[in-house]
Amino acid sequence: MTTINIIGSGNVAQHLVRFFINSEAFLLLSVLVRNTANVTFEPLPCLIIDDYNQQPLADITIIAVSDDAIAEVSNKIIHQNTLVVHTSGAKNLDILDKKHKRGVFYPLQTFSKHKKVNFKEIPICIEAENPKDEGFLEHFALKISKNVYKINSEQRSKLHIAAVFVNNFTNYLYQIGNEICVENNIPFKILEPLIIETALKTQELSPKEAQTGPAKRHDLQTIKNHLEGLTNENHIKIYTLLTTMILNSTIDKG
Amino acid sequence: MTTINIIGSGNVAQHLVRFFINSEAFLLLSVLVRNTANVTFEPLPCLIIDDYNQQPLADITIIAVSDDAIAEVSNKIIHQNTLVVHTSGAKNLDILDKKHKRGVFYPLQTFSKHKKVNFKEIPICIEAENPKDEGFLEHFALKISKNVYKINSEQRSKLHIAAVFVNNFTNYLYQIGNEICVENNIPFKILEPLIIETALKTQELSPKEAQTGPAKRHDLQTIKNHLEGLTNENHIKIYTLLTTMILNSTIDKG
Repeated sequence: MTTINIIGSGNVAQHLVRFFINSEAFLLLSVLVRNTANVTFEPLPCLIIDDYNQQPLADITIIAVSDDAIAEVSNKIIHQNTLVVHTSGAKNLDILDKKHKRGVFYPLQTFSKHKKVNFKEIPICIEAENPKDEGFLEHFALKISKNVYKINSEQRSKLHIAAVFVNNFTNYLYQIGNEICVENNIPFKILEPLIIETALKTQELSPKEAQTGPAKRHDLQTIKNHLEGLTNENHIKIYTLLTTMILNSTIDKG
Repeated sequence: MTTINIIGSGNVAQHLVRFFINSEAFLLLSVLVRNTANVTFEPLPCLIIDDYNQQPLADITIIAVSDDAIAEVSNKIIHQNTLVVHTSGAKNLDILDKKHKRGVFYPLQTFSKHKKVNFKEIPICIEAENPKDEGFLEHFALKISKNVYKINSEQRSKLHIAAVFVNNFTNYLYQIGNEICVENNIPFKILEPLIIETALKTQELSPKEAQTGPAKRHDLQTIKNHLEGLTNENHIKIYTLLTTMILNSTIDKG
């Protein structure tokens, strides 16, 4: 049975804790948080500590804290030469202290506090400094998810940027859709099936093949009408930029 | 039983035809296309015609052609004073010929040729010039979908713009995500669960509540790293514009 320490109390840490305590393949030894007095976990069948000296030795220690705190947390771990991984998409492996056998365990998903996640479906990107640890980490990750990828630090930093486009920026476009609906007394939920279908299409078609709309069709009259119909300056800027790019990217088909 | 004519042979027309011929509540009388010699329908249990003089009288005639052809098609219909609707999100009701009892039947979804759709889940926006036709249209639409909304022409034109943001533009962001993955030898399907989860979140949280990421957190270091990591000029432009807007929209929380 694989023994585990977790450090952190945010969304990712909480989802991992919940997963490990409910799984028979793992034994969660401890959760280390900044201050046990502030901890929001329900009673757990493991140590909940805020003192690094109390952290037991485990097969793997998972640092699931905010990006800026990873290096400091890693420094504070008292054990030498044990496998320590962080869960960040944006940070290199070498941000971890050299005293560790270093690795990365990056679950690529958006975690909300109150929404259950199914780890089996979540892609997990792994990286380790040495092949033996990589083998362990792969085996470990495959017991959690069916989608495990070996991704090095350079690739992971690009993947994280791509994730910003398809998650953060996409969500911001949903927000603009919402704003336009609210302004015009239209229930936003009219758009929900379209939003979901647009996302599901990526499973069957490449985004390039799936592209539709007035810009793709070079329907300049509709584009003009849309720009006249928009009142918010930000909406106009984004509409103009994205439309121009889609127009240019499909110029051969004009 | 409601009798129906359809005009058009594109995606929307084809999906409607397939739905009506498989439903017992409707009798599809005819499908009128520009040229029967070019028609791609499988054999249908109804008239397939290209001559407006052969079009039978029906309870409702649905014009499902490209936006620019609606007015001309409407003019050509020989019957007077029958219910004629178009299916466009972008066009006003009054683009239809005055000789008709005019209406709009706008299914708000992205239709692909080879992908089945479930009309029960597709929001249908209806509009009619007079209340009696509106009542008929509502009743008619509710036999097709459980989500029927009365949306006037002004609202529909705004809704269509909102749909461009959450569908066309969102898909273009997926394409950028794809381009970044391809450039860095990363399989795009790593991002698919994130894409789908981001879309599903709109059912539980408003987009404003669901917003995450470096711009929302005002994490300027990560933003700087991302901008240094991007090589494509278009990607940089979009990253900069959307990040600036998210930064500004959450400035109070900075």
